[in-house]
Amino acid sequence: MSERLIYLPLGGAGEIGMNCYVYGYGPADAERLIVVDLGVTFPDMDGTPGVDLIFPDIAWLEERRDRIDGIFITHAHEDHVGAIGHLWQRLRAPIYARAFTAHIARGKMSEHGLDETTVQTANTWPDMIAAGPFRVGFLPISHSIPESSGLVIETPAGRVMHSGDFKLDMNPVVGEAFDPDLWAQAAAPGVRALVCDSTNVFSTHPGRSESTLGDDIAALVANAKGMVVATTFASNVARLKTLADAAHAAGRSVCLMGRAMHRMIDASVATGVLTDFPPVVSSDDAGGIPRDNLMLIVTGSQGERRAASAQLARGKYRGMELKEGDLFLFSSKIIPGNERGVIRIMNQLSEKGVDIADDASGNFHVSGHANRPDLERLQNIVNPQVVVPMHGEHRHLRQHVKLSQGLGRASVLAINGTMVDLAGNTPRVVDYVDTGRLYLDGKVQVGALDGIVRDRIRMALNGHVIVTIILDEKDEPLGDPWCDLMGLPETGVSNASLVEVLEADLGQYLGRAGDKILADDGKLEEALRRVARNTALAEIGKKPEVSVVVSRMV
Amino acid sequence: MSERLIYLPLGGAGEIGMNCYVYGYGPADAERLIVVDLGVTFPDMDGTPGVDLIFPDIAWLEERRDRIDGIFITHAHEDHVGAIGHLWQRLRAPIYARAFTAHIARGKMSEHGLDETTVQTANTWPDMIAAGPFRVGFLPISHSIPESSGLVIETPAGRVMHSGDFKLDMNPVVGEAFDPDLWAQAAAPGVRALVCDSTNVFSTHPGRSESTLGDDIAALVANAKGMVVATTFASNVARLKTLADAAHAAGRSVCLMGRAMHRMIDASVATGVLTDFPPVVSSDDAGGIPRDNLMLIVTGSQGERRAASAQLARGKYRGMELKEGDLFLFSSKIIPGNERGVIRIMNQLSEKGVDIADDASGNFHVSGHANRPDLERLQNIVNPQVVVPMHGEHRHLRQHVKLSQGLGRASVLAINGTMVDLAGNTPRVVDYVDTGRLYLDGKVQVGALDGIVRDRIRMALNGHVIVTIILDEKDEPLGDPWCDLMGLPETGVSNASLVEVLEADLGQYLGRAGDKILADDGKLEEALRRVARNTALAEIGKKPEVSVVVSRMV
Repeated sequence: MSERLIYLPLGGAGEIGMNCYVYGYGPADAERLIVVDLGVTFPDMDGTPGVDLIFPDIAWLEERRDRIDGIFITHAHEDHVGAIGHLWQRLRAPIYARAFTAHIARGKMSEHGLDETTVQTANTWPDMIAAGPFRVGFLPISHSIPESSGLVIETPAGRVMHSGDFKLDMNPVVGEAFDPDLWAQAAAPGVRALVCDSTNVFSTHPGRSESTLGDDIAALVANAKGMVVATTFASNVARLKTLADAAHAAGRSVCLMGRAMHRMIDASVATGVLTDFPPVVSSDDAGGIPRDNLMLIVTGSQGERRAASAQLARGKYRGMELKEGDLFLFSSKIIPGNERGVIRIMNQLSEKGVDIADDASGNFHVSGHANRPDLERLQNIVNPQVVVPMHGEHRHLRQHVKLSQGLGRASVLAINGTMVDLAGNTPRVVDYVDTGRLYLDGKVQVGALDGIVRDRIRMALNGHVIVTIILDEKDEPLGDPWCDLMGLPETGVSNASLVEVLEADLGQYLGRAGDKILADDGKLEEALRRVARNTALAEIGKKPEVSVVVSRMV
Repeated sequence: MSERLIYLPLGGAGEIGMNCYVYGYGPADAERLIVVDLGVTFPDMDGTPGVDLIFPDIAWLEERRDRIDGIFITHAHEDHVGAIGHLWQRLRAPIYARAFTAHIARGKMSEHGLDETTVQTANTWPDMIAAGPFRVGFLPISHSIPESSGLVIETPAGRVMHSGDFKLDMNPVVGEAFDPDLWAQAAAPGVRALVCDSTNVFSTHPGRSESTLGDDIAALVANAKGMVVATTFASNVARLKTLADAAHAAGRSVCLMGRAMHRMIDASVATGVLTDFPPVVSSDDAGGIPRDNLMLIVTGSQGERRAASAQLARGKYRGMELKEGDLFLFSSKIIPGNERGVIRIMNQLSEKGVDIADDASGNFHVSGHANRPDLERLQNIVNPQVVVPMHGEHRHLRQHVKLSQGLGRASVLAINGTMVDLAGNTPRVVDYVDTGRLYLDGKVQVGALDGIVRDRIRMALNGHVIVTIILDEKDEPLGDPWCDLMGLPETGVSNASLVEVLEADLGQYLGRAGDKILADDGKLEEALRRVARNTALAEIGKKPEVSVVVSRMV
C-alpha cells in the first residue's frame, strides 16, 4: 500500500503546552494535510528572558502550505489556539472550531488584522467537515473550558480519534458532560488509532468532577468575614460559575476583574454556553458595596506579575484594597515553574493580614485532565488498535505508552518531529522532521536558535564589558582603550576600580601588540576580548561578556 | 527594668533559608550579643542571575563587633552554617558547635584561609558555654542531619529556648532520637520564650519518622532489575544509610558520587556519628561491577546542573552511564522553585528509558521539619510564656503566631530586622534594623541594592545597545554614530537592519542637535539613549538597555 496516514506532532509532544499536530493522507511526501491546534507556550526567566510568547516552528508546514486542507481547533485554551493570530498568514487554510472556541479564535484573528470569517463554526459529530481526503467531526468531551472537543478523523486508511485535552466529567457544571455512549458510537466503525492526552498519566486516582467543589467553596465563602477574593483560570467558566454561585448564596455581589475574565464570560454568554451566571457589578460599583457583601473573582492564579491578583497583593487595584481578615482563595493549582510567583503573592497577602485558602486540602480545585484510570476507561470505550500518546513531557508519553501496552494495545512514543505512518498494521516511524520553537520578542519573531536569547542569558549571568578603542590612519591607537561596565561590580579583589584595572591591562596589551593585529579588526577584537576576560577573571572571579568597538579614523 | 533581652533576626524570618538570629542582653543599645547561625540562601535566574551565593547583610552586627560574645551554630545545613567562611572575618567571635557541625564548620574556615581553632566543639546540655551574660547549652533534637541541636539560652532575664530546625523523630536511624524528657528537664526552670522553626506549619498531619522509609526503599531496590541510582541531600546521613542498607540487603555494592556526599560521610565517620555504614566502592571500581549488582548514591536531588544526577541524566559521569531498564530514585522532595530543573532531569532519564521513583507516593521521603501537631507538642513540653516563630516565610510565621495564640500563648511576628525585647511581661517590638542581602558574585561580595544584578536582569529582558560617537575638539561629530547590539534581533518591522535604522535615526538627531547638548557628555548620552530606545520601540516593540560611549578628541 503506497498511501500513508501520517501523524506528526510539531508541538505538545515532549512538553506540556504549545500543541500543534499534523495529520496527512496520500502518497509519501505528497500527503494532503490537516492541522490540529496551533497553540503557544509561555516563556520563563530561566530559559527565555524577555520573550513574550513561544510558538511551534511551523517551517515544515509553511513549505507545504498548498497541501493544507484545514486547521481544526479542539478548544480555546491558549496552548491550543493562542498562535493562530501570529502564524495563520504563513498557512492560510480555513480554521474550524465549535462556537465558543470560534468566538475566541475570531477575536485573535481580528486583533492581528486578519479576516475573522476564516474561522468557521463547526457543528458536532455526527456532522463531519470535508477537508481533502479527511472528514472531521467535533466530538464533545469535558475539560476545564466550555465546548472542548475530541476529533473524529475519518480517512481512507481508517478512523483516528484525537482526544484533545479532556477529563471524564459526568457533571461538569457548565457545558456537556462526558457521554460514553456518544464516544462508543463514534468509535463503533473501528478505530485505527487513539491519539490521546497524557498530562495526568501519573495521577493514579480517578479524576474528580467539577461539581464536587460546589459545597466546599460555598461553605468557605459563607463563613468568610471580610472581603473574599478568588482566582482561577479565566477560561474555566464552570469554576467561575461555581465561585459566583457561592458568592450569590452568601449574599455577596460578584465583581470580575482582569481582561481575560471579561473576555471569557462575554464569549460564554454570546455563544449561549452560559445562561444562568449570577449578576455581576462593575469595579466602579464594587467600591460602594460593604466588603463583607462582596466577592472579587480575579485573574492571575499563576502569580503573573501584571494580573489582578498580583496587583491586589501589592496594593490597590481598581480602587479595591485588601485588609486584615479578608480571604483570598486560590481555586487553582500551581503549574510547575510558577511556584515562586504564586508564593510571592501569598506572602504579600500574609503581610496584609489576609487569610489564604488553596488547593492543599483538595477541596477547592480539581484538574481538567484525565488521570490514569480515566485514560484506561477511554481506551476501553474507543477500543483503538493503536494508542499514540500526545500532550505531555517525555516522561508522560513514555508512561502512557507503557500503560497502553500493559492493556494489550500497540503504542508508539512520538515526540515533536517524529512522523508516524498509521496506515499499516503496526505504526511505523517514517521520518524525523526538524522542529523547534519560535519566540515572539516584542513585535518580532525570532528563532530559538538565533542566539539572541542565549546572548541575553549570558549577559545576565556574566555581565557585559564594552571596550572602545580608536585607531588612526596608520593603525596606531589614539589614546588608551576605555571600558564601560554593565552588571558588574565596581571593584574586584585588588580593591582598585575594575574599569581602571581593565583599561590598564588593555592599554599594556595594545602597547605591545604587533602591526598585523592592529590592522585587523577581527584579530584585534578577539585579542582585546581575551585580555578583558582574563583580567576580569583574576579581579572578580568570572569572565564577563565583552563587546569590543574598534573605530578607525580614515 | 532597664536591661533588655533582645531577639533580632537578620535572616531566616520572612524566608526559608539564610538563617541568622541575634540575641542580646544588657542596657538598651549596649547589649552584649550572641549570634545563632550564619547561613546562606541560593540564587535563582528570576531574581539573582549569575550570583553564586546569598548571605544576610551583617552590617548591623559588624558595627557592634566588640559586643559579640559568641557564634552558635545549631547544625551543619548550608542555610545555617554556609556563610561562616565568607563572613567570619567581619565578626571575629568564637564559634561553638557540636562535633559533627564543628567538623563541617572547620572545613569552611580552612577553605577561606581562616583559623580552624576558632571553631570550638561543644558538649551537650546540661553543659553550658558562658558567653558574656549568656550561658548556652546545646540540646540534641532530631532533624535531617546528624547532631542537630536546639539551644538553651540562659540570661539574667530568663531562659530562652531556640529550637533550631527540628522534627520529633523517635527513631531517626542515625543520631539521637527526640527525647521529650530531656527537653522537659531543660525547660523545667521556666521558659520565657520558645523561638521555633515554622517551615512546616501548614502540614496538618504529624511528621513521620525517618525509620518508616526503610522497608519501602528496601523493597523498591530489591525488585529493581538494572542499575539503581538514588539521590537525596548529601547531608541527610540517615537517608544515605537507609539507601545503602537497602542496596546491601539486595546484594548491591554502593558507590557514592558527588563531592558533598563524600564530605558528609567523611565527617560522620570522623566524628563517630556513623559506625555501621555498609562498605562502599570507588567510582573506578564501580565500572567493573555488573549493573544489577550496583547502586549509586548521588548528589543533585534539586536538579542542580553540575551535580552528579544532572550529569548522569545528560550522559556519562565518571564512567557510568544509565540505560533502558535502570531505576532512578528521588529520595527527596522538590524545594519550591527547583521544579524546572528536576523535571528536566526526569525527562532526560525518560529519554534514556530509565524508570523513575519519586516521593509522589510518600514512600521514599519524609520531611526533616516539625509539622503543625509536632509544633503543638513541643510547645506543650517546653511550656513557654511566649512563642516567637522563626525560620519561615511571612505566611509561615503568621500561621505559627495564630497557632500559638490559639493555644493560649503570647506570640509575636518578627521578620528580619525586627528587634523584640523579651525581658518584660509581654514581648515588645523596640526597633527596626535595616537588613538585606549580600551577594557573592564570583569572588566579590556585592550589595543586593547596588544595582548590578538589576542591570543584568534588564539586559536579559531587554537586550543591550551600545552607541559609540566620536566628537572633535570643537564638539563636532566625527562621522556618524554607530551601534552594536547584544541580545536583540537583526531586523524589526521595517525589515531593514535594526543597526542601520538605529544609526540613521541617531545620525539625524546629531545633525540637528544644538551645541549645548554636543558639549555636554551627560546631556548627549541621555539624548542618544532616548533616540535609540524610541527607535527600537518602533522597530521591535521593546526598549533595550542603551550604553552610550562618547569619545572626544582633545
